[in-house]
Amino acid sequence: MNYLKIFSPATVANVSCGFDSLGFAVDTIGDEMTFTKTQEKGVKITNITGANLTYDVDKNAASAVVKKMLEDANADFGVALTIHKGFSPGSGLGSSAASAAGAAFGTNKLLNNVFSNLELTKFAMFGEKVACGSAIADNVAAAIYGGFVLVRSYEPLEIIKLPVPNELRAVAIHPQIEVKTKDAREVLPSKIDLNDAVTQWANVGGLISGLYTNNYQLISNSLVDIIVEPHRKKLIPFFDNVKNSALKADALGAGISGSGPTIFALCKGDEIANKVHQSIKETYKETGIDFEMYISKVNPDGMKILNSN
Amino acid sequence: MNYLKIFSPATVANVSCGFDSLGFAVDTIGDEMTFTKTQEKGVKITNITGANLTYDVDKNAASAVVKKMLEDANADFGVALTIHKGFSPGSGLGSSAASAAGAAFGTNKLLNNVFSNLELTKFAMFGEKVACGSAIADNVAAAIYGGFVLVRSYEPLEIIKLPVPNELRAVAIHPQIEVKTKDAREVLPSKIDLNDAVTQWANVGGLISGLYTNNYQLISNSLVDIIVEPHRKKLIPFFDNVKNSALKADALGAGISGSGPTIFALCKGDEIANKVHQSIKETYKETGIDFEMYISKVNPDGMKILNSN
Repeated sequence: MNYLKIFSPATVANVSCGFDSLGFAVDTIGDEMTFTKTQEKGVKITNITGANLTYDVDKNAASAVVKKMLEDANADFGVALTIHKGFSPGSGLGSSAASAAGAAFGTNKLLNNVFSNLELTKFAMFGEKVACGSAIADNVAAAIYGGFVLVRSYEPLEIIKLPVPNELRAVAIHPQIEVKTKDAREVLPSKIDLNDAVTQWANVGGLISGLYTNNYQLISNSLVDIIVEPHRKKLIPFFDNVKNSALKADALGAGISGSGPTIFALCKGDEIANKVHQSIKETYKETGIDFEMYISKVNPDGMKILNSN
Repeated sequence: MNYLKIFSPATVANVSCGFDSLGFAVDTIGDEMTFTKTQEKGVKITNITGANLTYDVDKNAASAVVKKMLEDANADFGVALTIHKGFSPGSGLGSSAASAAGAAFGTNKLLNNVFSNLELTKFAMFGEKVACGSAIADNVAAAIYGGFVLVRSYEPLEIIKLPVPNELRAVAIHPQIEVKTKDAREVLPSKIDLNDAVTQWANVGGLISGLYTNNYQLISNSLVDIIVEPHRKKLIPFFDNVKNSALKADALGAGISGSGPTIFALCKGDEIANKVHQSIKETYKETGIDFEMYISKVNPDGMKILNSN
């Protein structure tokens, strides 16, 4: 393979009760990236559209990953990269993760799949570190593995791919405001009540159990976050209104995507997802704040190859 | 049905990472109880063997449950109860839970199964409250549902039955010392680090995922408790020695059963379970403290009817 064009999905990390542990990939939001083998070694970015990102190959999340992988694999070729961002950086939908994970996936194809998904996740985490300063795994793992993932452990890194019930749909609203990751971290308490932690891990257990058994009611009951959401929602204007309008329209649950400001809702089936989409839209129109909305399947496969030769 | 004799299993609650949320039933440790319909309404205990427990029907965990159920069901008969305790109260293996859950199960049979397992769990929790002062669900739910259970929520009560990999075996050692539940509660911090909580709930997720997928390695990796065990193990002499000897003999993991002093190990298959049993035994013999040991399948069914007419 000398050339490929891929779709790298946006991802929802945290997923209510699963703060810093759970994530899932979506299907209709994401970046398109092309990878072309070059005789000249190393990496260059030939085009970036859709967002204003750096062309400095050591500072761009995607090219930094490509560069590191080519070096680690001792490749006898280089890569020319184009990036089309399909959604905004700073949305809480894993923008840098989509770049970094897409770069890892695409480069691995040109390297004849020499690296495992776990290794690709580690490379993509390096890209996250370049872009955001910390090597977080939940978004990049969801993008690479697809579907729902559990980051069971960082040391050593262990990623568990969880099953995705067939009718699971995600609706997301991205209010056009900025939530700084630093602020989102700073509003969190360093200590929490043991009793609250028990409630939270029982919900993590319930959510994962519901994914394995296609039990939408259990998924719904478990999509509760009593630890992080009460603090972070203050950074997102009209969070409660959005959540309530989603639940009123029969969403299984709703919460903050990553560190926000995007709010996601999970739903059973297209009909309810459309109803939830409409309900949230009507609610947010009244706020006067600009927003974008998405509706998508939970994407069980993650990356897609759109074109190759 | 006018008479039945049942086996009500011992149970391991908490299960490392799953403090106050997870439990499982064992197969070779438990109580035997008989239930005989009587014309006279109400409940009486005609015999208790194996432990020194009260015959006061309002204070005994088993009879208190029987009495409440007969009243709630408006039964036109009474029950004469015998209890043979097969393991010691205060062991951390759910002794009062076996009595209370057995009483709920047995009485329900005489009532032609009028109550659901969830309702039986609630009745048994009432028995736990009579015996221990608090209506804890994890032991009684494991005894009633069998196998592994997750207490997803208390309000409303929601119990999730989890699958049990076929080769899962439990080894338990009960050092003949007393750990008061009150002390076991008091050593716990009321506040914990958010980062530790994340580690713990990722392990809960991993353990449950491992149960669904028969992934013994994942079960092993996830059987870690960084929150409760470090405090409670101080109340159990030679805990670390036991745990290390279990892990050296290839146990999947080991931890405190309930609030102790019993220590459990989970193992894959009979051969390793026997090896772990032997290894722990040799370790504890050197301590000079008396102990009892058990080896058992994880019991997927919970209660058994031994006899009826």
